[in-house]
Order: sequence, then structure tokens, then C-alpha cells
Amino acid sequence: MKNENSNNKSVGKQSILFQNPPCIISFSSVAGKKEGEGPLAGYFDIIEEDPMFGGKSWEDAESRMQKRAADLAIEKASLKSADIRYLVAGDLLGQLIATSFGIMDLQIPMFGVYGACSTMGESMSLASILIDGGYANKVIALTSSHYAGAEKQFRFPLDYGNQRPLAATWTVTGSGAVIIANPDEVKKNPEDDKPIIHITGITTGKVTDYGIKDSMNMGACMAPAAADVIYHNLSDLNRSADYYDKIITGDLGYVGSDILKDIMKEKGYDISKNHMDCGKEIFSKESQDTHSGGSGCGCSAITLTGFVFHKMLSKEWKKVLFVPTGALLSTVSYNEGNSVPGIAHGVIIEIME
Amino acid sequence: MKNENSNNKSVGKQSILFQNPPCIISFSSVAGKKEGEGPLAGYFDIIEEDPMFGGKSWEDAESRMQKRAADLAIEKASLKSADIRYLVAGDLLGQLIATSFGIMDLQIPMFGVYGACSTMGESMSLASILIDGGYANKVIALTSSHYAGAEKQFRFPLDYGNQRPLAATWTVTGSGAVIIANPDEVKKNPEDDKPIIHITGITTGKVTDYGIKDSMNMGACMAPAAADVIYHNLSDLNRSADYYDKIITGDLGYVGSDILKDIMKEKGYDISKNHMDCGKEIFSKESQDTHSGGSGCGCSAITLTGFVFHKMLSKEWKKVLFVPTGALLSTVSYNEGNSVPGIAHGVIIEIME
Repeated sequence: MKNENSNNKSVGKQSILFQNPPCIISFSSVAGKKEGEGPLAGYFDIIEEDPMFGGKSWEDAESRMQKRAADLAIEKASLKSADIRYLVAGDLLGQLIATSFGIMDLQIPMFGVYGACSTMGESMSLASILIDGGYANKVIALTSSHYAGAEKQFRFPLDYGNQRPLAATWTVTGSGAVIIANPDEVKKNPEDDKPIIHITGITTGKVTDYGIKDSMNMGACMAPAAADVIYHNLSDLNRSADYYDKIITGDLGYVGSDILKDIMKEKGYDISKNHMDCGKEIFSKESQDTHSGGSGCGCSAITLTGFVFHKMLSKEWKKVLFVPTGALLSTVSYNEGNSVPGIAHGVIIEIME
Repeated sequence: MKNENSNNKSVGKQSILFQNPPCIISFSSVAGKKEGEGPLAGYFDIIEEDPMFGGKSWEDAESRMQKRAADLAIEKASLKSADIRYLVAGDLLGQLIATSFGIMDLQIPMFGVYGACSTMGESMSLASILIDGGYANKVIALTSSHYAGAEKQFRFPLDYGNQRPLAATWTVTGSGAVIIANPDEVKKNPEDDKPIIHITGITTGKVTDYGIKDSMNMGACMAPAAADVIYHNLSDLNRSADYYDKIITGDLGYVGSDILKDIMKEKGYDISKNHMDCGKEIFSKESQDTHSGGSGCGCSAITLTGFVFHKMLSKEWKKVLFVPTGALLSTVSYNEGNSVPGIAHGVIIEIME
């Protein structure tokens, strides 16, 4: 399985298996009002009714939301920000301003990352490498998106009341944080039956472009990138699709999820039984029509830190492949007639008792 | 020197020393016309007279420039893109579109990063971690900036002929690529006197905000972040400033460099003798008046891959602390009246014969 380009920790073409799998010691989910009215409402730590999060602009609102997610994750682990060696974070806004202004007060050395809506996967991948490689004992991975900030950045001012095609998704207002730690630091309480969530490996994506130019159908733009990562994860590690209890994409939505399953079938893998998409789960199709589902960095982030980790801690799911997906566009690239390529970042999350 | 938060590879509050220092096996510099008329012209691999780089927009021009830098670095190392395990790259444009479209054809698993003009330091830091940690044998770190693309993104259309204050810097058109490799793979030719450039450590920066709101004086915005990284590098590693032959900041320019030296003096370190700023070196003060100097991700990237590595390979400089600096702003954050915080990423580069 090893290729000539790899060494002891890398496997196949795009994957890594950690020798000393990092642990997730704390996580948090901050959701907006609409997300708090959806089917996952009961799983979020905080549901904020004020879309401004007490701030003075949409961007400020998103920064405050990120800060609350980070503070809460740190507090739940009984830590101080000075205990965290690195912060790996990013968001959808140009020049990552939600992150820059949100996390400034934490004063943690930072790696800013951009993977569009795949950011949670990218930040967790790099955070795990920092831990497994012995460069840090605790790292926080963090991301966010805000419906109004994203509409302002990528589409039209909300006041226009612009119509949206059926393939469009609804950007989630939410921020998720995960604290990843050296397993040697995590002492299991023998009287505690609670399992520990580990990150056992990653599969890193390439920019993948099928030439689709419709920014209102981002599911179609991103599905090939998700398929590439899932395919390489399974083939690099010589696993069948049913190795995982769930293969969880970020925000392909209804349209993109169908495309993903079709591409995977063409590649010889049937993921129709265990595939789940955060964009399809986070809003109710019946009572909260968002057309193709939810999207944004926050969509996969709070579905992971709310719903998915709950399922894992209750041992309902023990092996998860988390594959958030990003559409790589800006208003400039779109207006200049470019296609919308995609990228995805796979993170293998497993319960080890 | 170790703090409670650290383990065997991390040192002090913000630094890492690599146990098996990664090697720089190849590098490239692609410069624009104006940069090719400046004092460093003789050090660049390619000077392109066409500001469009054969493309159809400024963004397309920057993507093509990045592709040429990456291709050239790969070619100089007699490699193919499939030999490179990861690409760590980013640029100044919203949603990193110069990078996304530039590197797509390389089909290398990618970590997109954003550190504004500190991106070369951030990408080299993460690339070195991937190598030293045993996750890859070869990683390419890449960044770029384009004068016209940056003016369009951050300031005014060029056709306005906008006036610039004396504290303003001129965004460099340039792209630099560095291929970092596992030292076990690099066989020294005993008959060859050429030294090998290693990355021996890093010091990762925090978002640092002194409340400065003038985006036309980015040197002042970034100097505190540079000072924080240089201070922590020296104190974490218990080094005096003269340990380094050169302490090289990215694009503080004339105004920011003076502020940096003053802050460092207040912190008890005199760096006036060995400080160099890429923004002051890349354009001629006399014949190419750019006011405070050059800036942009490309400024430090091509000064490093052109001029600095030349000085190191000729053994004139053996120990360099490379500290590119970034100003964290977008037109949205600026127009909403926010300050311009800074970040810096320190990379320790040494000749080991």
C-alpha cells in the first residue's frame, strides 16, 4: 500500500494513519436561531436568538460567535487559553476577518487556514498532525459561518429579497470548536464508561474541477472533490465502504449527495447505506424549506460537534469518516466566468474504549 | 526553557526546534517587470515583462505566475508533481482564488493557508512540520502577490490614478516556491562544495493588534507582530540577536522597520545591526520611488528564494531568521472602521555543511 513517495506514517497516495491517535478532549457548538429551530436543536451547546450576537455588523457577529465557541470548548475542558499551544482556524469571509477579529483576545499562536466549507476538516487535520508529531499537547481547531455575512460576501444584500434556485443551499449560522490533545495526557477514569473519541487518520484533498460554473449549485461543484477523498481514503487504507458506520460529507445538500453516491458507484464503492450529509440533516426539509439544504463552514462544524460526537459518545457510531467539502470561488472568480472547483478534507474519527 | 505546555519538540512559548531539520532542495522566483528593474533583478529566475502573464485578468495573471513558480521549482529538483506529497499555499485575494486556480493542474493534496503577507512563513512552517514529523518526504510551499490584483482587491482601480501617502507600500508582483524535503533523502555529493539549506525551527505568531486603523501604513500595523515573533524566538531559544547573521522581516518597509527596531530595543534586544526588510531591498529608493517600499506575499517570497538563498549558498549568511509579516484586513473590515491587526511567522533557516 505504500507508494515510493511515502514514509512510515503516510499511506497510499493521500492518507496518513496516526501512530498515537490524538484525542478529542472537548468540543462546542454555537448555533443561530434558525439552526436552533431545526431537527438538531437538542444537540447544540448554545442557540443564540440574536443574529447579531450582540455585535455591530454581520462580520462582528461571526467573530463573536467564534470567540464564544472557542471559549466554551476551553472552559468545558477546564483549561485556560494559555494551555492551548496552537489555534488552527479559518472562515469563509475574504482575508479570514471573522477569525482574525474573533480569536485575537485568546492570544494563541495561530495558523490561519482556508478550505472554504471544508475548513473544519483542514483545521482538524493540521491540528492532529501537530499533536501526533509531538509539536503540541493541545491544539484548538475552529471555524464558523454566518448566513447574513456569507450572503453579503458571495451573493446579494439580504434586503434585495433575491430569489434562490432549488439547487441553492442555505449558509448555516454556527461555529464549532474542537480541542485535540496528546493521548498520553488523557487519563481514562476506570469508573467512567464514557468512551474517548480519537482521530486515527486523515485523507487530504486536491483541488478538483469538473468545470461547473453554477455558484447556486455548489453541491454539484463539490461532489467530485468529496468523491476523490472518499475514494482515496478507502483505496489507500484498503477498506470497504462499510468499514465506517457513517461517511459524513459537509454540505453537498440533496443535489450534491445524489451526485456523490453516483460517482462513488462508478468508482466501485456503494456508500448509499452509510452516507450522511450535514447539509441534509441540519434543517427540516418539511418545515424549514432551504431548497438543497444547509452549507457553510459552520454546517459541518456544528453538526459534528453537536450531533455526530453525541452519536459517538453514546457508542451508536464507532467509526466515522468526516469529509467536509468546500467550493473554491469568490465573487471575482465567479464574475470573471470561472468554474467553481471543489476541495474536501477527510478526517477518520473513531471511538477507542 | 520548556514550559508546562510543551513536549520534546516544542520550546518555550511559541517555538519548535526540529530534531531532523528538513532541507530546502529546490526553490524558484518569478518576478514582474518593475521588480526586474530593481536592485535584486539579477537574483530572480524569471522576470516577466507582461503584467498579464499571458492571462485574461489580474487574478488569472497571478494564478499563472504561481503555476510557473511551482513548475520551475519542481523542474529544478528533477521531480514531477506526483513526487510532491503536499502543497501548502495561499495568497492575498479573497478566498485564495489565485492559488486555487493556479495550482489545480498540479493535482497535489493541498492545505490552503492565509496569513496575509506572512503566508510564505506560514506555508514553510507547516511544510517543515509535515517533513520533520514523518508525514511526507517532499512538500512544496508556495505564495504570490500581484500589484494590480492587490490594488483591485484592497484599494482602488488602477485607472483612478489614486494618490498614495508616503507610508504606503507597493505590492510586489512575484511568486516564490520552496520544495522542502526529508534530509534522509538528500545525499550530499562529497565532491560538491555547495552547502545545504536547512529549516532548523519555527516560531509561530499570534494575532497582534495595537489598534492602528491606517491601511495605508501597514508597516506600523505589522511591526508589533514581527517584534512579538522575534522576541519569542530569541527568548524561547535563549539566543541573543547576533546569533543570526540576518533577521529578515517581510514587508515592514521604511516606516515599519524603524518601529520594529524601537520596539525590540524596548524589549531589550538590539537588532539594528542585522535587521533587513525585504520591502526595503526589493525596490530602489532612488530610482523606483515606491514610498515606504515593497509589500505583499510575493515581496518576502521572491526576496527569500532569489536574494537570501543566494547569500546563504555562497556562505555569506549562515543563520537567518525569516519573519514575513501580514496585515489582517479586508475592505469590509476596513470600511467598517476596524483596526488592522498583524501576524508574523518566523522560520529559522541555517546552512549546515
